[in-house]
Amino acid sequence: MPKIVNHEQKKEYIAAAAWRVILREGMKGATVRGIAQEAGMSLGALRHYFSTQEDLIAYAMQLVRERALLRITANDRPDLPPKIRVLNLLFEVVPWSEDTRAEMDVWLAYVFSLGPKADTLGVQQEMRTGMQSLIAYLSEVRMLREGTDPELAAETLYSLVDGLAMHAYLEPGRLSKERIAAVLTGYLDSICVAEQGG
Amino acid sequence: MPKIVNHEQKKEYIAAAAWRVILREGMKGATVRGIAQEAGMSLGALRHYFSTQEDLIAYAMQLVRERALLRITANDRPDLPPKIRVLNLLFEVVPWSEDTRAEMDVWLAYVFSLGPKADTLGVQQEMRTGMQSLIAYLSEVRMLREGTDPELAAETLYSLVDGLAMHAYLEPGRLSKERIAAVLTGYLDSICVAEQGG
Repeated sequence: MPKIVNHEQKKEYIAAAAWRVILREGMKGATVRGIAQEAGMSLGALRHYFSTQEDLIAYAMQLVRERALLRITANDRPDLPPKIRVLNLLFEVVPWSEDTRAEMDVWLAYVFSLGPKADTLGVQQEMRTGMQSLIAYLSEVRMLREGTDPELAAETLYSLVDGLAMHAYLEPGRLSKERIAAVLTGYLDSICVAEQGG
Repeated sequence: MPKIVNHEQKKEYIAAAAWRVILREGMKGATVRGIAQEAGMSLGALRHYFSTQEDLIAYAMQLVRERALLRITANDRPDLPPKIRVLNLLFEVVPWSEDTRAEMDVWLAYVFSLGPKADTLGVQQEMRTGMQSLIAYLSEVRMLREGTDPELAAETLYSLVDGLAMHAYLEPGRLSKERIAAVLTGYLDSICVAEQGG
């Protein structure tokens, strides 16, 4: 009788092995052979789920993206005062916890391995749109300081978030959680009026 | 009679070929063979100057770094009003002109190809120290707004500069020169008092 395995679960298990390899060695180690070894599978068994390295990595990256989106939605706290709510959401897209840091590191290793004009799977566009939504929300609840250009504030926040992710990747150990929070809080303070409470 | 060639000039010529390959194809194309082809040399001739790909790339990156430092020093304008002087220097380290954009793109392709905990050849540290100096200068000439934390402002500027470089690399065509200038100007305005003139 054949073993009953959930095809999708097995794919997720392989993707997780790919993440571990990328976090440890960067994309250089993320060959089909290296990932099969990490997953404790034969090359043949792995090829049953992914026929090429490109397929495997694209799947793993889409999974990173989906999980991040789920986590962001789950952790949104509409009950918080607006500025704190926005900060709380920003902490989901910067290297703030072990989870988000691993996500960012895997993503950066991946996207820069593609070379210039990479297909970023819509992730960069999504991040930029997300920043625009946060600023639009602050504007809606009348928290944006007079004279703040929403488009420019979103662009600035988008640069900050990715700059912080880049530095956490390149200089692990230097950029603390507290420092990341201070940079984001400082910028939000500069474009927001004083918080009025929830 | 043997041809008289300047050894160092030839190395720079090869480094320039390496940059072109990296800009076109990312680090994937930057093999010794690919670079030799771009330089119009045989593999054997190239190996006379660089015995390994690592040597060649490390040399090319040091050259990027040295040229950037020379350009920054040459373009400093102590005669400008402080905030404009700082902006003018920042434009040398963001993807603002064709030169700086190529530099940033080559650098990002390189540094992310190394994987996590890369040896960034001191460049990231230099950039961070540079941002600290700019903020210290603004403080010295009493341009920093009261209550601005210089350390935090330097960290923010450092994140902005690299975030902008990253977006210019990943989304070429979207991030215009004007937009980059507006982000940097907007941030400086938020931490500086109104310019008093030179």
